[in-house]
Amino acid sequence: MAGKVFFSVSMSLDGFVAPEEREDDPDQQRWTAQWMELQQWLFPLRFFRENLKFGEGGEEGRANDIARETFERTGASVMGKRMFDLGEKAWPPEAPFHTPVFVVTHEKRDPWERPGGTVFHFVNDGIESALDQARAAAGDRDVRIAGGGTTILEYVNAGLVDEFTVALAPVLFGTGTSLFAGVDADRVALEQVRSEPTQRVTHVTYAVRTR
Amino acid sequence: MAGKVFFSVSMSLDGFVAPEEREDDPDQQRWTAQWMELQQWLFPLRFFRENLKFGEGGEEGRANDIARETFERTGASVMGKRMFDLGEKAWPPEAPFHTPVFVVTHEKRDPWERPGGTVFHFVNDGIESALDQARAAAGDRDVRIAGGGTTILEYVNAGLVDEFTVALAPVLFGTGTSLFAGVDADRVALEQVRSEPTQRVTHVTYAVRTR
Repeated sequence: MAGKVFFSVSMSLDGFVAPEEREDDPDQQRWTAQWMELQQWLFPLRFFRENLKFGEGGEEGRANDIARETFERTGASVMGKRMFDLGEKAWPPEAPFHTPVFVVTHEKRDPWERPGGTVFHFVNDGIESALDQARAAAGDRDVRIAGGGTTILEYVNAGLVDEFTVALAPVLFGTGTSLFAGVDADRVALEQVRSEPTQRVTHVTYAVRTR
Repeated sequence: MAGKVFFSVSMSLDGFVAPEEREDDPDQQRWTAQWMELQQWLFPLRFFRENLKFGEGGEEGRANDIARETFERTGASVMGKRMFDLGEKAWPPEAPFHTPVFVVTHEKRDPWERPGGTVFHFVNDGIESALDQARAAAGDRDVRIAGGGTTILEYVNAGLVDEFTVALAPVLFGTGTSLFAGVDADRVALEQVRSEPTQRVTHVTYAVRTR
């Protein structure tokens, strides 16, 4: 049985998945502070700390279970070049995917194997090819479109996403990287299939339909 | 005991409280269809049908209770001139407020009393004056900033809103009237104080804090 294609992101209440990059913020201090607020629900979780090797302890409970379930359902991921380029500098050697990851890029490069089971594959022939390869690698588990926002929206507009979950964070950016600016609103319809508040955020899951 | 100042709106998942007005949509058919989708959770409710005199019947349950509670907590409303101008043409003679409503406008006009207890007062000296008058009229009930989006944001940025509830609707507009574009993100902080899924939408309530 084939798995689903999904994404899961933290989103500000005003629809942004990243703050605005500003010229008056060359060291990205403001950007980082805002981004931390967006992701704040994740950092104290036991699963998050374990997966990034931040050490023992951390909060358990429903938010932690949701983070763990998102990880465990994922048999392979797809990401854009920009997310990979940022992550390549930021992830620890044991990158936090522990599965195959298919990077949509024009760069030709051999697979890059990391300790802990993450293998990055560089796909040069488009988003559908990357998804096909991820589906094959995932087996009966799900494929996660990991990001960034532009890549996620390409998959949504192509009708290739089955469902997604937004962790709606109690923060307003005003400007930034909008997840859905450019969505094909005449074609994409949503159905709320699950909605689950935890202490800091609300996790809402939508099925994506074609009008 | 003074009441709270709040607003309550239906918002698309991408942060819009109204669709985009487009020149290729002169009869506003597309606009109306999108707006109906945004508000769709309200129309079947027993309270909504009662309040607009649409007749007997309608759905009961938690969504209906939320709509009724929002109405019953409201001792007076504040609205912008644009919302009033649109509503003046659209509301039935028995306007759906049944309380005093303070309209922020440059227009000088005598109070306009409607059957059923709604009285529109036209306030010419700014948003704080309108709110003061609404507070006095509301007694120990709450003041609702009814809309539109621009007026709501003025009150938020002025630090005059205590809390608000968003009915997060499963719809994407891509473009439209953003509720929070222009928010003073360096000053406004939110705390999720309540989150309640119903069948079609999720009702999330935030307390507004000053950073």
